[in-house]
Amino acid sequence: MKAGEDKLVQRIVKALAPEGGPWLPLGVGDDAALLTPRRGYDTILTCDWFLEGTHFLPGKHPADSIGWKCLARALSDIAAMGGEPRCFLLSLALPGKLALKEKGRGTGWLDEFLDGLRRAARRFRCMLAGGDTTQRREILINVTVVGEVLAGRAVLRSGAKAGDRIFVSGTLGEAELGLQKLRQGARVSPRNDRALRKHLYPEPRLPLGQWLADRKLAGSMMDLSDGLSSDLPRLCAASAVGARIHVAQIPSPKVPLSASRRFDALSLALNGGDDYELLFTVSANNAPRIPHSFQGIALTEIGEVTREQRVVMAQQDGTTKPLLPRGWDPFRK
Amino acid sequence: MKAGEDKLVQRIVKALAPEGGPWLPLGVGDDAALLTPRRGYDTILTCDWFLEGTHFLPGKHPADSIGWKCLARALSDIAAMGGEPRCFLLSLALPGKLALKEKGRGTGWLDEFLDGLRRAARRFRCMLAGGDTTQRREILINVTVVGEVLAGRAVLRSGAKAGDRIFVSGTLGEAELGLQKLRQGARVSPRNDRALRKHLYPEPRLPLGQWLADRKLAGSMMDLSDGLSSDLPRLCAASAVGARIHVAQIPSPKVPLSASRRFDALSLALNGGDDYELLFTVSANNAPRIPHSFQGIALTEIGEVTREQRVVMAQQDGTTKPLLPRGWDPFRK
Repeated sequence: MKAGEDKLVQRIVKALAPEGGPWLPLGVGDDAALLTPRRGYDTILTCDWFLEGTHFLPGKHPADSIGWKCLARALSDIAAMGGEPRCFLLSLALPGKLALKEKGRGTGWLDEFLDGLRRAARRFRCMLAGGDTTQRREILINVTVVGEVLAGRAVLRSGAKAGDRIFVSGTLGEAELGLQKLRQGARVSPRNDRALRKHLYPEPRLPLGQWLADRKLAGSMMDLSDGLSSDLPRLCAASAVGARIHVAQIPSPKVPLSASRRFDALSLALNGGDDYELLFTVSANNAPRIPHSFQGIALTEIGEVTREQRVVMAQQDGTTKPLLPRGWDPFRK
Repeated sequence: MKAGEDKLVQRIVKALAPEGGPWLPLGVGDDAALLTPRRGYDTILTCDWFLEGTHFLPGKHPADSIGWKCLARALSDIAAMGGEPRCFLLSLALPGKLALKEKGRGTGWLDEFLDGLRRAARRFRCMLAGGDTTQRREILINVTVVGEVLAGRAVLRSGAKAGDRIFVSGTLGEAELGLQKLRQGARVSPRNDRALRKHLYPEPRLPLGQWLADRKLAGSMMDLSDGLSSDLPRLCAASAVGARIHVAQIPSPKVPLSASRRFDALSLALNGGDDYELLFTVSANNAPRIPHSFQGIALTEIGEVTREQRVVMAQQDGTTKPLLPRGWDPFRK
């Protein structure tokens, strides 16, 4: 007779089918996971909350998006260091009716969740190594990802220097636009809607991050999870520099005419969270080596690093104003 | 003007004062933590939920015990592999009033929590490397610990063989007795009460685990977190063996006479959770090499591994009965 928690763990293991192999001598089922580090590499560690009500709404977000995104957003931190993923730990707290199979009932949510998680794990080559489960009224998720990067090659937030050019990947604010559509109950499939797809199934920019790190092109880098206006000041603070960005250069989403009264493309691009694009700086010498796109993802120069420790935005009329942090902050009042 | 989350992170970093050094080139404050693995060692990874209402009661558990225990219980998994701790990631979700300092108000809980966590981090030499924070109505904690063990020397659950002797460290059921005292509002200081101390400030058996692994004495090992009756069958299942334990040999707590009508020492020892003692098997040849105590912690032989895949308990009259899993299971109905 198996206990309830053991049954849940078995369902997770079955769904994610962790493969053994030289990179993961011991998977789920022991007190802890074991990993043989690759010689000459540093280990990267990151973890992320993904909580019902705070980060997703079970009534609005499909279970397979919750599975995909809980891993994808943690992987984005690996991308931001220029690393490659190795394995992850899944901490999952669920209501009993979602966790346990009862004669065909109540299995839908967990199966769909695990399906989304499995697709992300395979797509980004990051295998389940362990985790923890418990019962809870609300769905609580925490994901720890372990990655690796050639020793000394990780790209930090602290490497920006005055005169460097500032770049971002992709289009900023799209995920926020997608969230707004979801909230308003837009009856549209993510297949046909770029913004919705970006919100539900973000793609961590792993190949781009690795390319920038391998070629030593990025002096500093971070991922955009809370929005440019909140994240750029963090990069500047870590590097003890400032920044000037140019309004006209910020890649903002196309807001459909029908929504243009509610959404302003620039505000979305500055303050929208959940984009998981990369923000990085490149020396003026190397800036011409950055292509306009990488594997289909636009790379855009949006400004430059300044000695003066302020973050400002140059308007189209030539005046500047401070960039205020208005991105996602769970403790905002 | 710092955002709320950045302020909270600063308070955590200040309290835990992560020290840099060759073992942790990059601490808190970047997208992820970086760690240089020691050559010739495997990396151990484990994570643990610690949730208000499920694992602790804020009205009953002192904040510094919550801080100590959230790390100590994850470290117990490192002990169970025979490893040594290196660093941890703290995921913390808190009500705003606990997280943010407001003119001297509301700082007590977080300061005490961080104080307990700091004491455990120093005691067990496990430094903060990163984490994630958010706001939440209830206190949610998830801790990931990274440890190391000499390559190939980790002790797994799967190594028990028929004929091996089964040992446990310490006294089983003490922590459960302590929890019952706490629930009943016992007005006693943990300084003067062994059971309460064990429940509030458990000591992961790290030196013992390392000693057993280094000398290749333990063929299999796990930590007792849910109770012997639930955990021993897990070790047996992983090793495809059974076990016979002897009632008379199980180290059970001294139940005060005043509580003896409510608590039965044997039930506490079999089914009580949160002990964080080690359960391990030793070949019959090596069993005499196991001392009666290690650094003041009793080591007790409680039975033997059997070929037949059942877990039974030999009574004092010589009869046996099945050991049913009655330890902690969050999904028990």
